[in-house]
Amino acid sequence: MPPITAPVNAAQPERQPSVDALRRLVASDMEKVNRAILEYMQSPVALIPQLAGHIVASGGKRLRPMLTLATAGLCGYQGERHIGLAACVEFIHTATLLHDDVVDDSDLRRGRDTANAVWGNQASVLVGDFLFSRAFQLMIADGSLKVLKILSDASAIIAEGEVHQLVTTNDVETTEDAYLEVIRCKTAQLFAAAAQIGPVVAELPEADEFALEGFGRDLGVAFQLVDDVLDYTAEQAALGKTVGDDFREGKVTLPVILAYQAGSAEERAFWKRTVGDLDQHDGDLGEAQRLMARHGTLEASLERARGYAGAARHALRRFPANAHRAALEELTEFCVERAY
Amino acid sequence: MPPITAPVNAAQPERQPSVDALRRLVASDMEKVNRAILEYMQSPVALIPQLAGHIVASGGKRLRPMLTLATAGLCGYQGERHIGLAACVEFIHTATLLHDDVVDDSDLRRGRDTANAVWGNQASVLVGDFLFSRAFQLMIADGSLKVLKILSDASAIIAEGEVHQLVTTNDVETTEDAYLEVIRCKTAQLFAAAAQIGPVVAELPEADEFALEGFGRDLGVAFQLVDDVLDYTAEQAALGKTVGDDFREGKVTLPVILAYQAGSAEERAFWKRTVGDLDQHDGDLGEAQRLMARHGTLEASLERARGYAGAARHALRRFPANAHRAALEELTEFCVERAY
Repeated sequence: MPPITAPVNAAQPERQPSVDALRRLVASDMEKVNRAILEYMQSPVALIPQLAGHIVASGGKRLRPMLTLATAGLCGYQGERHIGLAACVEFIHTATLLHDDVVDDSDLRRGRDTANAVWGNQASVLVGDFLFSRAFQLMIADGSLKVLKILSDASAIIAEGEVHQLVTTNDVETTEDAYLEVIRCKTAQLFAAAAQIGPVVAELPEADEFALEGFGRDLGVAFQLVDDVLDYTAEQAALGKTVGDDFREGKVTLPVILAYQAGSAEERAFWKRTVGDLDQHDGDLGEAQRLMARHGTLEASLERARGYAGAARHALRRFPANAHRAALEELTEFCVERAY
Repeated sequence: MPPITAPVNAAQPERQPSVDALRRLVASDMEKVNRAILEYMQSPVALIPQLAGHIVASGGKRLRPMLTLATAGLCGYQGERHIGLAACVEFIHTATLLHDDVVDDSDLRRGRDTANAVWGNQASVLVGDFLFSRAFQLMIADGSLKVLKILSDASAIIAEGEVHQLVTTNDVETTEDAYLEVIRCKTAQLFAAAAQIGPVVAELPEADEFALEGFGRDLGVAFQLVDDVLDYTAEQAALGKTVGDDFREGKVTLPVILAYQAGSAEERAFWKRTVGDLDQHDGDLGEAQRLMARHGTLEASLERARGYAGAARHALRRFPANAHRAALEELTEFCVERAY
């Protein structure tokens, strides 16, 4: 019997987009970034590198610093400034994660293995503050007021977006516009800033900066839209968190907004009870998923994501068609296709 | 009967040090700082100015921005940069307060009217992040990498000090050295940075910067030492917080360290049970106060404070003997004498 040489889903084996090409392109730079991260999170206070190490190690894909490294490469940058600045970007992201995970009493009961579950809220807050301050120290050592402005503006906008999200929590009347504004701020702004740093250190004209800032922002919006869909669809292991977290926390994301808008009076009452009042019982998550399927809101959310990914891809067209551009283009596809 | 013209404690009616002279000297500048604070805490997300306004309004003495204004005056500075930078200093302080007040479950029960008690932990953390980012935006607008370095270094050191304090909580074996290091970082570093900004914007020689940085640091240590004493002695109304908070939270401050070191085996067991294990009963705070009185540890702590205040005063001697210097000298006395 001949060996099976082709995979089962052989129809489009090479068309499945991934981040592998991008990862390979920036691999040696990323190693330096990881060394910088380890070096700069040190402190005589041992709890700081312990707690920071926990979150940095579990931080996953390093997507944001990868954007800084890749756009620097795309812009033909030959120096070393992008290494430290990519570490800054990851520190700001990590500080945000730590502060995001500081939850009120009700959420602690789920007993997730977040830093605050292990070391307590206060340690998470304070180590986040340390990483945030350290990021600014690194930027100041870099010495560019322009980079400082980009990343401090991003930090303020992220915080604004997070507070805005807090305000929309449990509000099923949140509009699609308000939701998009939240994710542009809380997620996409750091993607935008990370991608803008490449052309800034390469000292390219402002038009290139704008293009890559826009690329990062659209990519970030697509990324978050897909994340919010995955919260209702993913296999638990693939997601790395519990399916239905957003539902249980009463976060009003686009799949909920669209289902509420399209829903009957009875369905709206369901959303108000479960997401609005957090009065949830066994089977409610399943019912939420059924209502989303009925109105096609997950697919509609992915459709929006596909649009933003396309816009991001479009923004790359002014740059030379080299390996970096191809890998960034593939990233825009990956961001959406990972939902399937 | 002749009217009583002199107060009862007429012996030294003018020698009671206060911050009134200093407050008068910087009054018109402080008004501008308050306007800047109000302006820069605005955001389209309404919860941000609401929550920030709550803490900024209850922030009290504005001691730290006052240091920036006063040292700028002492150094003969004629411009306007000290206004925005004093606002930055207050924003950093306010962010720290917000994050300090994010407490674990056990502390929430006391139901103090802190921002986190009103709006929840997460809002406090995120608005703190916003104010912190806003401070950096303001500094970047000022454009001095030197000021940015001073205040970002201070921010990192404050966070380190706060984490260090968290680690020493409940540890009755904490040494006086470790305690002093904690308060040098968590409190005195921002006093030092605030005082250093004056000579920096006035473009005085580095020796003047060092002198005023040292002045601020020693003043800050004295201030915190007295604060830690007041936690065991003050009238509740005067303190603006509950007497015995540190005791109940298991904070190991100098009065406890000295009482533990001087204590009998039985007394040490008391400290281990109450502060170490937080196993506290009615009457324990009174017993703690009696043990401190027995070993004179509150007076000994104030003696240390007096030493640091003297060092701070000494650092001012290189500056012209004008109204600003006199007011800052009086501030060093006030910081200690407010304990009486």
